Amino acid sequence: MNILFIMYDQLRFDYLSCAGHPHLHTPNFDRVAEMGVRFSNAFVQSPVCGSSRMSFYTGRYVSSHGAAWNGFPLRVGELTMGDHLRRAGMDCWLIGKTHMKADAEGLARLGLSPDSEIGARQAECGFDVWIRDDGLWGQGPDGFYDERRSPYNEYLKSKGYEAENPWASHANAGVDDAGDIASGWMFQNADKPANIREEDSETPWLTQRTIDFIDQAKGPWCAHVSYIKPHWPYIVPAPYHDMFGANHVPAAQRSAVEQEDAHPVYAAYMDNKICQAFQREDVRQKVIPAYMGLIKQCDDQLGILLDHLEATDRLKDTMIVLTSDHGDYLGDHWMGEKDLFHNPSVKIPMIVYDPRPEADATRGTVCDALVESIDLVPTFLDAAKGKAVPHILEGRSLEPWLHGEKPEWRDFVVSEYDYSVTPQAVKLGLEPSECRLFMIFDGRFKMMHAEGGFRPMLFDLQNDPEEFIDLAKTEGHEAEIERLYGLLFQWARRSAQRVTKSDDDIRAMRGASLRKGILPFLVDGSEVSDDLIAAYRGSAQKRYVGE
Amino acid sequence: MNILFIMYDQLRFDYLSCAGHPHLHTPNFDRVAEMGVRFSNAFVQSPVCGSSRMSFYTGRYVSSHGAAWNGFPLRVGELTMGDHLRRAGMDCWLIGKTHMKADAEGLARLGLSPDSEIGARQAECGFDVWIRDDGLWGQGPDGFYDERRSPYNEYLKSKGYEAENPWASHANAGVDDAGDIASGWMFQNADKPANIREEDSETPWLTQRTIDFIDQAKGPWCAHVSYIKPHWPYIVPAPYHDMFGANHVPAAQRSAVEQEDAHPVYAAYMDNKICQAFQREDVRQKVIPAYMGLIKQCDDQLGILLDHLEATDRLKDTMIVLTSDHGDYLGDHWMGEKDLFHNPSVKIPMIVYDPRPEADATRGTVCDALVESIDLVPTFLDAAKGKAVPHILEGRSLEPWLHGEKPEWRDFVVSEYDYSVTPQAVKLGLEPSECRLFMIFDGRFKMMHAEGGFRPMLFDLQNDPEEFIDLAKTEGHEAEIERLYGLLFQWARRSAQRVTKSDDDIRAMRGASLRKGILPFLVDGSEVSDDLIAAYRGSAQKRYVGE
Repeated sequence: MNILFIMYDQLRFDYLSCAGHPHLHTPNFDRVAEMGVRFSNAFVQSPVCGSSRMSFYTGRYVSSHGAAWNGFPLRVGELTMGDHLRRAGMDCWLIGKTHMKADAEGLARLGLSPDSEIGARQAECGFDVWIRDDGLWGQGPDGFYDERRSPYNEYLKSKGYEAENPWASHANAGVDDAGDIASGWMFQNADKPANIREEDSETPWLTQRTIDFIDQAKGPWCAHVSYIKPHWPYIVPAPYHDMFGANHVPAAQRSAVEQEDAHPVYAAYMDNKICQAFQREDVRQKVIPAYMGLIKQCDDQLGILLDHLEATDRLKDTMIVLTSDHGDYLGDHWMGEKDLFHNPSVKIPMIVYDPRPEADATRGTVCDALVESIDLVPTFLDAAKGKAVPHILEGRSLEPWLHGEKPEWRDFVVSEYDYSVTPQAVKLGLEPSECRLFMIFDGRFKMMHAEGGFRPMLFDLQNDPEEFIDLAKTEGHEAEIERLYGLLFQWARRSAQRVTKSDDDIRAMRGASLRKGILPFLVDGSEVSDDLIAAYRGSAQKRYVGE
Repeated sequence: MNILFIMYDQLRFDYLSCAGHPHLHTPNFDRVAEMGVRFSNAFVQSPVCGSSRMSFYTGRYVSSHGAAWNGFPLRVGELTMGDHLRRAGMDCWLIGKTHMKADAEGLARLGLSPDSEIGARQAECGFDVWIRDDGLWGQGPDGFYDERRSPYNEYLKSKGYEAENPWASHANAGVDDAGDIASGWMFQNADKPANIREEDSETPWLTQRTIDFIDQAKGPWCAHVSYIKPHWPYIVPAPYHDMFGANHVPAAQRSAVEQEDAHPVYAAYMDNKICQAFQREDVRQKVIPAYMGLIKQCDDQLGILLDHLEATDRLKDTMIVLTSDHGDYLGDHWMGEKDLFHNPSVKIPMIVYDPRPEADATRGTVCDALVESIDLVPTFLDAAKGKAVPHILEGRSLEPWLHGEKPEWRDFVVSEYDYSVTPQAVKLGLEPSECRLFMIFDGRFKMMHAEGGFRPMLFDLQNDPEEFIDLAKTEGHEAEIERLYGLLFQWARRSAQRVTKSDDDIRAMRGASLRKGILPFLVDGSEVSDDLIAAYRGSAQKRYVGE
């Protein structure tokens, strides 16, 4: 079996028709949901690209792998999906984005060169690279955000897009009435068609690269197909730019009560320029139709991929996973972007098609078990028939759910967020170590703990599914808060770094033999056999005492 | 400045005359205490050789480095004392024992060969090896406990000790009346002189290797001189074998109340054969005089080392540290060996001589600050004038204390213990993950938390300095227990793995420039300068829309 692990960037869990979106029809996402299982309670380990992805790729919580924000390098030697799958005899390839930063200092310390196979895998998050393009080729007066070579820009230039940075001037810009480039960085341009042929835009480009890979790949393989879209800049080529309009934009999920006595960290976010922008209805009216168009294009391209798999008879032995690294507030809760723990940010789509007959009973079903992004590596390791390594992987295989079983399962999910580099940290006057947030959600209650001496936030999603009422503002919820803190404490004490000894290794060490060199704490030897004593006495032909 | 980091194995904090032992006179330990500072509240991160040492050598808690018990390999890439000191321009050498197990799987995965310089350091806990000898050459019918080559056994053979394993038959055995080898493994032989010339026994041998090192070393260097003694087997050569007798053996610090309603984990330990043996007075009478003799020999050999440093004018620029990896119950609390958190096990000697004039004011003083074994790496890094790396090192430099300052300091110490491989785990029927113990001590109250659903243990050392009365057995201490659990929770949430980004790195990332490629969330561009907009718009000569 092969694995097509498809990730979209910043795709909200509820912007799919199979998840109930009223206006956005996504027949191809829905088709995979019909073929497999849609997990309706899936969460990321951190609502920011880099950290979330490092958890997807290592199967470990953020505080276990340590890459707590974008651009924080993943420490050298940290085991990845690629390490685990290759051990099980499955290749692991990258097609698209990882947002991974290599631990250059660690690589140098261990003498690993990025142009060696081992060094390259360490530098690329354990993947073998078919094509890497992180999709953020923004260029300011002081240079590029991402200084790597851009395969996508090279492609555009080869196609005749004559510009220094066609990603900026064509794929992510429109043209204004005066014929000038209208940058996609500006929301006012979000309703313009991108200045590019649709087939040359980022999503179709990566889809074609994926088909190129599939057509030559020898299995078993896992391919991480990682699209930059529907991530900002919010602009999309024709015909997707005007498929949706004001009448398709859902009302912002927000309430005045959220701004009353708001948690200081939440308040600092609502106050920043990103959120200020998304609090404007004109911005939502411009941005959301473009965001929907980008998703519609993703859906059409997914259809092309599915048709190709079907035409080449690969659907029967290819596991397909559709997910995202986090959501997008889009103005809900007075917020833009992601970063905090309301569902529009921390909850993700998670659709898994398992071609094996064992999964026939669950096709087209929805599973509301509490799923974490770290569950994918163990799921893939099961699919590759590799030995489970629970002393390293902190997630749990979804295979039992896919095969209609009712496994013992976790009682809560945890997500983390480190905002130490952000303007909010500066505004609140916090030290880096104080800028850490933890979410714990047990299926009903969601609590946010904030370091730095702040009170928690608490929501009851059973009675307040929209997460408007922060119960921690008022008396009477101390017991619930204490219970959730107890679960968080239990989680915080977990053994996360004993990665060199498995539980099986430990069981094998139990009752270690007395025959292997240590014969401790005998009074006179009568406790054990004479042979044992003789062996331990050792041979000696000479007496040294009293010479 | 150079650093002589001397560790003894299983040396109790209170078996030195400077620490108040009534019968054991240790003038050379006392001499260093007179030259420097004796820290009277120093604790190990785990009361077992291997894990304690990995914390000494990494400057990190056990749950941070993951080597939770003897023989659990230290994960490849984990930064060590050697990595930090070499970065500061100081060599870091090993002379003796580390009890370190290399992460063979990790080394292979990263293609590191143990015979390369980088691979060897990874395999030797970051040290360059002058001589490594872990000092446990026990040999049973199924072979050696330690399968490495033994430099010490090779030395003995070169000196004419004709035996397959002279460590067993000479250094750690006596001779009985019939002229047969009387193994040091048996307590009944502890009062016999070891079957070896005193100058060939382990402690003088390692002292001479240390002098060999010092005489050829080019500074600045740190030398970890790591003696196996006074660790068992409890037997010592003449004249040390009969220096101490029954009249020098302190009464066992134990009380009947300890056995009433004892904590299940503590009860399981008291019940094992080691502790059963040490509960016998005849055993204590045999063992403790030998243990004292071994320490007396260590003290005499320390004198030889100090005289050599003085004679070669090195005392003026050599920092000297005397410590141990844990203690020895010796029958106190109905226990033998180490493993749990009573002071005889978890508290260690910690004497530091700093030759710098800044330390003149504190010479001969005692400091009762709460010190942890992980404080030594930061102390040595300061001595080497290296940049502090608090995002990696979890300990704190002792330099302010040595220089007479009153620094902001920790409010509690934490120690951990994983007994998952032991007979106690089997007896209690626990899964490996349930066999973890945590000690938190705030200077007055000491609490032990045990995973696996057990109650805690609580001692008030102000009113019960001997740690006999487990307050958690009775009502009325809930508030104290809750407070200590709060501190443990705070500790458990620490950021321990964000090792690739320092706090300074994070501060430098704050308020990241808008000129470096990301210009997010502008409505119409009026929020920033026209130049900025122009730069972001990018250049383009061609319009693609509507072609």
